Amino acid sequence: MAEKLTIVKVGGAVVENNDQLNQLLKDFSAINGKKVLVHGGGRRATKIASSLGIKSKMVNGRRITDSAMLEVVTMVYGGLVNKNLIAKLQAEGVNAIGLTGADMNVIHSHKRPVKEVDYGFVGDVDSVDGAALRSLIEAGITPVMAPLTHDGKGNILNTNADTIASETAKALAKYYDVTLIYSFEKKGVLRNPDDDESIISKITRSDFKKYVSDGTVAGGMIPKLENAFAAIDSGVKKVNITLATAIDGNHGTIIE
Amino acid sequence: MAEKLTIVKVGGAVVENNDQLNQLLKDFSAINGKKVLVHGGGRRATKIASSLGIKSKMVNGRRITDSAMLEVVTMVYGGLVNKNLIAKLQAEGVNAIGLTGADMNVIHSHKRPVKEVDYGFVGDVDSVDGAALRSLIEAGITPVMAPLTHDGKGNILNTNADTIASETAKALAKYYDVTLIYSFEKKGVLRNPDDDESIISKITRSDFKKYVSDGTVAGGMIPKLENAFAAIDSGVKKVNITLATAIDGNHGTIIE
Repeated sequence: MAEKLTIVKVGGAVVENNDQLNQLLKDFSAINGKKVLVHGGGRRATKIASSLGIKSKMVNGRRITDSAMLEVVTMVYGGLVNKNLIAKLQAEGVNAIGLTGADMNVIHSHKRPVKEVDYGFVGDVDSVDGAALRSLIEAGITPVMAPLTHDGKGNILNTNADTIASETAKALAKYYDVTLIYSFEKKGVLRNPDDDESIISKITRSDFKKYVSDGTVAGGMIPKLENAFAAIDSGVKKVNITLATAIDGNHGTIIE
Repeated sequence: MAEKLTIVKVGGAVVENNDQLNQLLKDFSAINGKKVLVHGGGRRATKIASSLGIKSKMVNGRRITDSAMLEVVTMVYGGLVNKNLIAKLQAEGVNAIGLTGADMNVIHSHKRPVKEVDYGFVGDVDSVDGAALRSLIEAGITPVMAPLTHDGKGNILNTNADTIASETAKALAKYYDVTLIYSFEKKGVLRNPDDDESIISKITRSDFKKYVSDGTVAGGMIPKLENAFAAIDSGVKKVNITLATAIDGNHGTIIE
């Protein structure tokens, strides 16, 4: 049996709340064995862009990344958020390293083709170099991945953090018994969005279809679950959708 | 004889000039053998701070880093400048990785004690983990170092890029035959500041003392040369102070 590896994705809302973030980092540090952290940071970027006089344009909940916004996300995700996470993890005794997809060429992407919407400098992932990540992990290092990739032609591209997490999980599933944990501000996938305790503890693919058609699962949870099932199809052992302060693998919603 | 390693430090003025930067990156890519890039980025930080309504305070040409300015330099040095360099180097076929001192705990520092001047969140280097850098270099990876370190207690600290370069050179001198190249906007150490061609091709320690006492060498060149001699004293083979577009080791001023 392959060795266990835990990949935790933490969203922008948690990254911006110091108390929640410190708790998450303590919990992350306490996870036994090999691990990877993937972070977002969307709201922070919106705030700093606004201070710089740059308007955030969203279409269907997705950010349009023009060249000014690309500079902001490169600064905020790759610098401010990532480097503060690294310094805090080092203080917790985790030998972390911050990575974008450009670093060690770990995630190659291409600029999303313009169809109905021009998303701008947004990258769709082509490949994750699992062997490169593994070489760091085997040296006792914990990769901390920012939601940025590159096109191999010198350009950074803004990339969805959930996608980075699932693509990384797939690439590492060749080497490890991977658990992918999507942590966020809710306790899991909820049966009733107004009831924080109505956690669906387990979802199969047929449950998912049913929940989408009856409207139980909607909005941003649909692509999150699609990412989760795609990860399982590619050899990831378990996906867990859970509260940012409950990442021990025994809470929230399980997909396996 | 140890294997050759070249460390190039590139200043903020070059990083901000796209033509000069692209030329420097091509020249850096063309350097044979193992290498490390160290970058500054001061003016870019000043400009972005100003757009954010944060005033830059300087004392004796050194930046005072209050908490707002620390966020700016973390974003700009660790994110915007570093990640764009990485993407551009990858496009040139250099398998680069961006590092602050927090990443892999490569540079540990402490906050500079307050004496006559309170420099704020500025780090004085305690140690560079040469073995960690060597493990990357031996795997065919080129470290690209931002002028940020950490104190091991969770805090990023702003650190002079020339110092990062010389401390890194010293730490790697244990393993390699190190040449340290300080590239900047002049052709070398000049005998006459008004004559760009009056390059002093070689400086010994006694020359340096004489040049300081007669005023030939002044201002920011004094700490740069002090860093250079300190590097030589710690086993670095050669220091070269040269134009950013002449980093082949055969131009500018040599200290050895």
